[in-house]
Amino acid sequence: MRDDSPNSWESRADSFSLYGFTDLPSVHERGAVVVTHGKGPYVYDVHGREYLDANSGLWNMVAGFDHPGLAEAAKAQYDRFPGYHAFFGRMSDQTVLLSQKLVEVSPFEKGRVFYTNSGSEANDTMVKILWFLGAAEGNPQRRKIITRVNSYHGVTAVSASMTGKPYNSVFGLPLPGFIHVGCPHYWRFGQDGETEEQFTERMAKELEATIIKEGPDTIAGFFAEPVMGAGGAIPPSKGYFQAVQKVLKRYNIPLIADEVITGFGRTGNTWGCETYDFTPDAIISSKNLTAGYFPMGAVILGPDLADRVQAAAEAIEEFPHGFTASGHPVGCAVALKAIDVIMSEGLAENVRTLTPLFEEGMARLAENANIGEWRGKGLMGALEAVQDKATKTPFDGSLSVSERIANTCTDMGLICRPLGQAVVLCPPFIMTPAQMDEMFDKLEKALKKVFAEVA
Amino acid sequence: MRDDSPNSWESRADSFSLYGFTDLPSVHERGAVVVTHGKGPYVYDVHGREYLDANSGLWNMVAGFDHPGLAEAAKAQYDRFPGYHAFFGRMSDQTVLLSQKLVEVSPFEKGRVFYTNSGSEANDTMVKILWFLGAAEGNPQRRKIITRVNSYHGVTAVSASMTGKPYNSVFGLPLPGFIHVGCPHYWRFGQDGETEEQFTERMAKELEATIIKEGPDTIAGFFAEPVMGAGGAIPPSKGYFQAVQKVLKRYNIPLIADEVITGFGRTGNTWGCETYDFTPDAIISSKNLTAGYFPMGAVILGPDLADRVQAAAEAIEEFPHGFTASGHPVGCAVALKAIDVIMSEGLAENVRTLTPLFEEGMARLAENANIGEWRGKGLMGALEAVQDKATKTPFDGSLSVSERIANTCTDMGLICRPLGQAVVLCPPFIMTPAQMDEMFDKLEKALKKVFAEVA
Repeated sequence: MRDDSPNSWESRADSFSLYGFTDLPSVHERGAVVVTHGKGPYVYDVHGREYLDANSGLWNMVAGFDHPGLAEAAKAQYDRFPGYHAFFGRMSDQTVLLSQKLVEVSPFEKGRVFYTNSGSEANDTMVKILWFLGAAEGNPQRRKIITRVNSYHGVTAVSASMTGKPYNSVFGLPLPGFIHVGCPHYWRFGQDGETEEQFTERMAKELEATIIKEGPDTIAGFFAEPVMGAGGAIPPSKGYFQAVQKVLKRYNIPLIADEVITGFGRTGNTWGCETYDFTPDAIISSKNLTAGYFPMGAVILGPDLADRVQAAAEAIEEFPHGFTASGHPVGCAVALKAIDVIMSEGLAENVRTLTPLFEEGMARLAENANIGEWRGKGLMGALEAVQDKATKTPFDGSLSVSERIANTCTDMGLICRPLGQAVVLCPPFIMTPAQMDEMFDKLEKALKKVFAEVA
Repeated sequence: MRDDSPNSWESRADSFSLYGFTDLPSVHERGAVVVTHGKGPYVYDVHGREYLDANSGLWNMVAGFDHPGLAEAAKAQYDRFPGYHAFFGRMSDQTVLLSQKLVEVSPFEKGRVFYTNSGSEANDTMVKILWFLGAAEGNPQRRKIITRVNSYHGVTAVSASMTGKPYNSVFGLPLPGFIHVGCPHYWRFGQDGETEEQFTERMAKELEATIIKEGPDTIAGFFAEPVMGAGGAIPPSKGYFQAVQKVLKRYNIPLIADEVITGFGRTGNTWGCETYDFTPDAIISSKNLTAGYFPMGAVILGPDLADRVQAAAEAIEEFPHGFTASGHPVGCAVALKAIDVIMSEGLAENVRTLTPLFEEGMARLAENANIGEWRGKGLMGALEAVQDKATKTPFDGSLSVSERIANTCTDMGLICRPLGQAVVLCPPFIMTPAQMDEMFDKLEKALKKVFAEVA
């Protein structure tokens, strides 16, 4: 498949890239896929091959790869004011407008916004805010951060420490003080004879036991994705957030909702916390915030944290933190448009319309003898491959079953994402029912082909 | 000055922002400056006031605030392909082109590029790369990072730990294992009777003593800005990089050049390391890389590190790191254009042309009895305010002398940056001699006014 001539795209990608999150044996064998343009949910590579991107880029290109309104918003701002910062009490008009808008669409009646360039930076910033607050309020020991096994919060050293994935050990992470409690995935971690409600209760008890063991006054915050994303599209067990929030409130520990993936429409509502009916103390946003058209993250502090952080900053006359491109005027103009496009111009509505079709397609594929479960919420879902459905036994890791499925899909012109032994789907919000049929048809063929080889 | 009506820009900025790196008493008194557009080196606020931005935004808007070629490059790419990632062996064509270009313009004969969204993320990533390498090569204890007092490397928890500024203590930073050696600022830290050469020798000896004390096999890397930026535009003492590199080589410790500010023209050459005649093991780039038109950072690994990191990744079949917008196609298209604009379309040349005028203006202002020294390189410089020139005694901190100078300048329509008791100037590369005259005239008036009040 790959063009090995010295000046080919594949050869140049190989020569000059340190590939990230890439299966190196696959890229050596198949060559990098170098993408030139897109149309709706499709992308096209340098060889003219077409791929239906059931991955929405990386969850984020939810308006597709050629949305005219978003491109127009970016272009107009480039003509108007193509760059500025938000330091020294100066910022662009677009930055002020977006902050106001974000508080308006948040679940908070009031709040404050801090901008970053990514979800990683937003989580990292939120940790710094909690450390700042602890020290300012006379609790400098309040530094530990609790997250969950299989959670994903980013790749800076601190946000990678929050991420509950084993691969971070290659960096000597997590750093001390980052604690991972259980993953609320009932199908995989429920015990024999345990109901889902009992499982949830056990998760909450485990959290409380961890807090007590570590010392409640050493815990700065608890971060959770409403639906786990890169952990494998894992919705919480029934009543999970109500149960853990009760525990957290008992010990005055803030609950931070990492809505990088779930924010702005993925589960059918503006926020995942809306879908699961809880109000966090702060929200981390990124990805859909600009529909992938600009790198941006935001920390949205709810009323209590906003007031306390502001008071702590006033006491030392400054909050000494900020990224050069925090609140970039083009990013803010794009985000203002993206929020409108997603929430008011039919995209979130299309998520709600498509969800039954998506669930139906997932359920159909889950009938396969080598699919242990399908799970998901809104337009994010996963099919978990198993060697034995009854015992939920996974395939031997050396078979790389999900990578084989994903590579087979790529050969058929469908991009989906292998995660552990699951295949994750998170289609763009502009998908049509016909494109959804195409997605499931191709995936079904790929599953049959790969399972025939390995099962 | 501020409009306090409830829906004013100032009131909305106050209500919804967690201001970063902002003197809160100043913003409360004066109101946020909300900026709508720019023209060349000037920006304009919502009240129509004009400011000559001698700060280049935040060092980065070096092509000014309305460069048609850069806006055109961004707009064309928005029409062509407005967003993609660089995971899973897929990336945009623009990403491949930029990686090739960055290695070409680097001081390295070969190398590999990893993209981030900011300088903070690039430094944070470089630390993770060094930790990854240590563990992969059987030296998991090789984790300590050495930087310098007054250095600035960013604001993620790790890059803030690298930053040698006292304000990070409010976050309980630096994290353990981040060590700060002396700042090579001869005027301030040279001892009585010590020549500049002797001072440099002392700095190198101090570094070596620190390495030995900590244990050479525990040090992962040494990071340095060729000219310190947010420390106050501090060039190294004579022969500094040659002296420290000799020490680092003795202990096999990589030298990482943080060229976030100095890269692409600020000192008159492509790289600051070129200006100071040394070759680092890796380069951290951001800011001018896109002339501020897009958030982007890059780690450029030189040949030795590129080969070793690649081998370490091959051994585990993946380098498990990456940001969603790493290698964003619009950012890469903008960077390709920015590099051309700066290096080939006359901007770096203008830096070299303007430098003698800049030095002359600085020298003239430094004749003031309350300016202790002027320092700088290329188009970055600082004027250090002192209460007593002969003894180099600073003003009482409660006088906030540099903030008063900066606020007085703002009132006159000139933006410059207070840093400690210095005023820093880093004009955009498109400045004309007449605009430079305007800058120095206004600053001179502000200095006279403030010193008359406080001296």
